[in-house]
Amino acid sequence: MSKLIREGDYILLYLDRRRTYLVRVEEGKNFHTHKGFIQLDGLLGKEYGTRIKSNLNVEFVALKPILRDFIIKALRKTQIMYPKDIALTIIFSGIGPGSLVVEAGTGTGALTMALAHFVKPNGHVYSYEVRAEFLEVAKKNLKRLGLLDFVKLKNKDVTEGIDEQNVDAVILDLATPWLVVPHAYKALKPSGNLVSFSPTIDQVLKTTEALKENNFVDVKTFECLLREMRVERGKTRPQTLMTGHTGYITCARKTLK
Amino acid sequence: MSKLIREGDYILLYLDRRRTYLVRVEEGKNFHTHKGFIQLDGLLGKEYGTRIKSNLNVEFVALKPILRDFIIKALRKTQIMYPKDIALTIIFSGIGPGSLVVEAGTGTGALTMALAHFVKPNGHVYSYEVRAEFLEVAKKNLKRLGLLDFVKLKNKDVTEGIDEQNVDAVILDLATPWLVVPHAYKALKPSGNLVSFSPTIDQVLKTTEALKENNFVDVKTFECLLREMRVERGKTRPQTLMTGHTGYITCARKTLK
Amino acid sequence: MSKLIREGDYILLYLDRRRTYLVRVEEGKNFHTHKGFIQLDGLLGKEYGTRIKSNLNVEFVALKPILRDFIIKALRKTQIMYPKDIALTIIFSGIGPGSLVVEAGTGTGALTMALAHFVKPNGHVYSYEVRAEFLEVAKKNLKRLGLLDFVKLKNKDVTEGIDEQNVDAVILDLATPWLVVPHAYKALKPSGNLVSFSPTIDQVLKTTEALKENNFVDVKTFECLLREMRVERGKTRPQTLMTGHTGYITCARKTLK
Amino acid sequence: MSKLIREGDYILLYLDRRRTYLVRVEEGKNFHTHKGFIQLDGLLGKEYGTRIKSNLNVEFVALKPILRDFIIKALRKTQIMYPKDIALTIIFSGIGPGSLVVEAGTGTGALTMALAHFVKPNGHVYSYEVRAEFLEVAKKNLKRLGLLDFVKLKNKDVTEGIDEQNVDAVILDLATPWLVVPHAYKALKPSGNLVSFSPTIDQVLKTTEALKENNFVDVKTFECLLREMRVERGKTRPQTLMTGHTGYITCARKTLK
Repeated sequence: MSKLIREGDYILLYLDRRRTYLVRVEEGKNFHTHKGFIQLDGLLGKEYGTRIKSNLNVEFVALKPILRDFIIKALRKTQIMYPKDIALTIIFSGIGPGSLVVEAGTGTGALTMALAHFVKPNGHVYSYEVRAEFLEVAKKNLKRLGLLDFVKLKNKDVTEGIDEQNVDAVILDLATPWLVVPHAYKALKPSGNLVSFSPTIDQVLKTTEALKENNFVDVKTFECLLREMRVERGKTRPQTLMTGHTGYITCARKTLK
Repeated sequence: MSKLIREGDYILLYLDRRRTYLVRVEEGKNFHTHKGFIQLDGLLGKEYGTRIKSNLNVEFVALKPILRDFIIKALRKTQIMYPKDIALTIIFSGIGPGSLVVEAGTGTGALTMALAHFVKPNGHVYSYEVRAEFLEVAKKNLKRLGLLDFVKLKNKDVTEGIDEQNVDAVILDLATPWLVVPHAYKALKPSGNLVSFSPTIDQVLKTTEALKENNFVDVKTFECLLREMRVERGKTRPQTLMTGHTGYITCARKTLK
Repeated sequence: MSKLIREGDYILLYLDRRRTYLVRVEEGKNFHTHKGFIQLDGLLGKEYGTRIKSNLNVEFVALKPILRDFIIKALRKTQIMYPKDIALTIIFSGIGPGSLVVEAGTGTGALTMALAHFVKPNGHVYSYEVRAEFLEVAKKNLKRLGLLDFVKLKNKDVTEGIDEQNVDAVILDLATPWLVVPHAYKALKPSGNLVSFSPTIDQVLKTTEALKENNFVDVKTFECLLREMRVERGKTRPQTLMTGHTGYITCARKTLK
Repeated sequence: MSKLIREGDYILLYLDRRRTYLVRVEEGKNFHTHKGFIQLDGLLGKEYGTRIKSNLNVEFVALKPILRDFIIKALRKTQIMYPKDIALTIIFSGIGPGSLVVEAGTGTGALTMALAHFVKPNGHVYSYEVRAEFLEVAKKNLKRLGLLDFVKLKNKDVTEGIDEQNVDAVILDLATPWLVVPHAYKALKPSGNLVSFSPTIDQVLKTTEALKENNFVDVKTFECLLREMRVERGKTRPQTLMTGHTGYITCARKTLK
């Protein structure tokens, strides 16, 4: 990974804590904000972290985007798994470089990106999605991160079966995870891990029951509340507004019958 | 990774949701619990996920431990960074396979394990710790996971300086993170990420001020509350007791002056 | 209310933030703690707030107990409504001095005390409890606070009906609140308020459905998390352990058909 | 309290869980909403809880507003004490019917209303506010609830002293509570209670230190998180957005030196 910004690279233009922009650097391209426009040419050959001014003399920083930035920008209203949930999913699933992972559904690929990022260079992600239009979006998102080689996007209904076998983990983020549990059991290697993400209690209950009926143990469900703090001498306090709920994370481990 | 349990492997003996034991399988060794003892020999050559009974006929499952299990078992009273905090630290730091990371302090190596797990096979962790006795414990913990090749344990005071340069991330979990901020600035590559974990508001404030004075931007602090749910038809509810606080996570990005 | 401590008065002996004792002052009585004993005689005729030493020279403060102290000391394992829940119940129920309130079940009287405290001097609480042995405990607890005149304790099964009519509020803290909803509708005055406290989601759902079927509107459910802070210069932080869940509070208002 | 709606009464027009309107009923007056207007005349002589249709045939319910409704409608951007905080303040302060309470500052009177509501008919609230324009608003708010007789609004700077003596509780909701602590000590009866509400950690720390220096004991600080649940068969889950912070509540008790 070169430290210098080149044609085609993505940068995170940072204005302030609330406003950042994920931008592809192209010759001759201007990026327009309400604080004026930025000539992206001016960044070519510069180091990441460089400060640059808009034509209205407002300073931005050209940061190197990290996985989390790509995830946040990939989130759509149809998806509600936040970086906090993705982080916990990674830890609960036990995956790492070299792991084989089945994921369903792909959605816009926010979670897929994270999975691919952490199983590379020698692991692989098999991601199921019934809605073809989402796969196109996911493909674009994965391409931006250079992660397409580590993912197989499959336009299939995972509730009808999983093609893979002996995988390390199955990650579910779809409306009816309980229907996938028997397929996940077959796909997982012994002692393999399943993680499911669901917004409602009812989904959690059905999934938990399906897991217990299908020889999974250590079935646990968590919710994660993340609160930002405003840190400033004499004014330190938690932020006023927060996300009160995204979803519940259920994890389990396959046992042999 | 073989699926069969072999001499010297670690297993997670699972009794129920509250009681699991991380055990090294050795020929001729019995593992004693209050539910009787288990002849570990009986597991040799078996698949992970196998069920096994104690001499009192109580069933256990021999699971393959994942990173998170090793982390939980490595936690000591001196450390309070939980898997939830480690998961967020991984995401906030932007690291992944191939990353170069400086960490301080090592402690018992709970966070070091996670960092090494996610930067392997081509990345590296440089971990600073002043207390030599902790390094011994960390070494043992890393060895159990086969991660020692990806970590350089350094018995040095990080507040006096960081030897490495051009690293992707600096992760701080020590009493005075603000003293390390100028060293971290020098060690980080441009646009590199710093993540600091601290139990008290005062540490967070001092670290935040040091970060802003040292050309870091996007300085943010979060706290994470994780609550387990008891999921059972007709009885579903959050658990009665929870951890109300471990620490605050502060993250920031280096900019060029 | 006299400021001077007299024979028969209750005091709250305060040792430190974790250890307080609710004690009845009687002539010639000693109160024994692990920090020595206190001669309660020595407090007679003194002002509340007086400091007093044990025979081991450890200082205590003889505070005047408030409602909340009596509530905390009345809590038993069978009850899990904390002062925070009681406080919210009071506000959600809309009661105040002069209100007529039906409560079920009485339990040890922790909530009954609070209701009586806030409806006196001209209101009244009708409290239902099927288990006679609890009513005895509740009676004692109410007597200590001088609140017995404002409560009618009824050894009856509230799921079979409510005798009162035209009451301002009905407060439910029992296993099957949904069975009481039709009776509560009849007992309430038009636009009267119902508040129900339940530990599980399933109870909340059944109660919510019963309320909507029985012409209640503005049916809302809340949970309240209370976290204590450790406040000390240079060490300020939330407490490590907290209660993660007591119960959900559901409130609703009667409309005319 | 009559159950029939009369000229000059306030009603809470309820449309749905998100939209309610606090309205004064006057002859000949129409109340306009985006769902059409309501002829308030039609409610005169009717019972509270009556359903009424707008000219667009949309149904509303004419509820009897409770204290909490008046509080919510009285909240302004300058005040951030929510009903949850007010409820806890009432419990922590130990007040009830008959109590004498000093409050500062009055603001728009949201807390004053609650205090007056719970100390009536034989208690009294002395409320300090330096900004005369706020006192006018508070006066109006108290008048609507018929609580003006139980409150003395004082256009005075409480940091210069408290006129009252031997009061049961002092409640502080202003920018510099620590400056009032010595005055509060003098105003309180022995073992009297102080409750202070502050948004920032720094205010909490200064107030806590002032309390400990001024012979208060049992000094504790809490924060309260209230989360609403969406309860519906098959869809039950916490609400997506919540208030992450309003302020910290610090309570303490006066001891004799």
